[in-house]
Amino acid sequence: MRIAILLYDRLTALDAVGPYEVLRNAPDAEILFVGKEKGEVRAGAGTLGLMVDRTFDEVPSADILVVPGGAGQVDAMKDEEILSWLRKIDKTTTWTTSVCTGSLILAAAGLLDGRKATSHWLALDQLPAFGAEPTDRRVVFDDKYVTAGGVSAGIDMALALTDKFAGDVAAQAIQLGLEYDPQPPYDAGTPTKAPAQLVSMMRENSKYFLTGT
Amino acid sequence: MRIAILLYDRLTALDAVGPYEVLRNAPDAEILFVGKEKGEVRAGAGTLGLMVDRTFDEVPSADILVVPGGAGQVDAMKDEEILSWLRKIDKTTTWTTSVCTGSLILAAAGLLDGRKATSHWLALDQLPAFGAEPTDRRVVFDDKYVTAGGVSAGIDMALALTDKFAGDVAAQAIQLGLEYDPQPPYDAGTPTKAPAQLVSMMRENSKYFLTGT
Repeated sequence: MRIAILLYDRLTALDAVGPYEVLRNAPDAEILFVGKEKGEVRAGAGTLGLMVDRTFDEVPSADILVVPGGAGQVDAMKDEEILSWLRKIDKTTTWTTSVCTGSLILAAAGLLDGRKATSHWLALDQLPAFGAEPTDRRVVFDDKYVTAGGVSAGIDMALALTDKFAGDVAAQAIQLGLEYDPQPPYDAGTPTKAPAQLVSMMRENSKYFLTGT
Repeated sequence: MRIAILLYDRLTALDAVGPYEVLRNAPDAEILFVGKEKGEVRAGAGTLGLMVDRTFDEVPSADILVVPGGAGQVDAMKDEEILSWLRKIDKTTTWTTSVCTGSLILAAAGLLDGRKATSHWLALDQLPAFGAEPTDRRVVFDDKYVTAGGVSAGIDMALALTDKFAGDVAAQAIQLGLEYDPQPPYDAGTPTKAPAQLVSMMRENSKYFLTGT
């Protein structure tokens, strides 16, 4: 099973690495890190270099596509080379997936029109501009399109997806292998659970997500 | 605040990227990816390339050290260049931390002697050989030594650590930013919760963790 994970500059590393770490343990998985050019992209604010091993031309098809989000998503949404590859590979996939603001890139490629989808909670309200229906769940399945919430939600998305295509034993084995028995110190992982003042503060500071600046 | 994350061949990417994604959002964090030589190391079975930006010589000190685990841990435990850097930088840290079998590397460097520590559940029984006391909790604090369980536990470790050095608002803000409201599809993330047959099967197949082959 061929799994293509898109890499681009200023992606959020965990958006890509969470699903990678789950899916690479799925039966017969072959993971390909794909981008515009072979070589390094820098994640986050430039802190971590991740390697693109395959160019778009080298990966015209895949069983599963994973599109991560991150600050670079704003530029990726305007990058016709990225968008046209997404449209092309999507025609071949069994599952087209995204994590965090990766759904906005899929949406910009026209792939979420009329679909239920999710994104990072700070970006959810940007989906309707592309014809997608914002759906406030951590993982949203709509036909073959699977979108996950912010950053860490990619782990849950990939486990739920593994459950669909490889069954419950495979999903549980991977969960146990990753010792995924989460114990966050606070119950503050969504805007409905976090302190209201913190949510407001983060909305105030979220121009980054809204405009990319 | 200077945070050094060790990279080496065949590490588990999520062991490093989980804590990185949390800690890079902490106040005044400067993250450095450190290894034997600058350039690419390959994670997992070689699927993902991560970049080492600094050599050991360039990073003699740090406030926080993070040591990830993974298949390459077996070789890392015998690598005197790695072990001597760990001993040296540990003298300067406020917190010395590990994820998954990274604790075995710390232990091999002699840094967990007499300490309570944890590791991947399949590797927990290797700690006593190095004088460490296996402690079956997801995150174990013993003085400045903080060890986490398998792979995904690094996210919880880094949040708990952020809570200690930056306070609850910072920890909650990061958790909300990462939308860390985990919803794994099964309650199978530890050997006590997963189906017994699955646990037995994974113990049978765990020679990898025990011998590195």
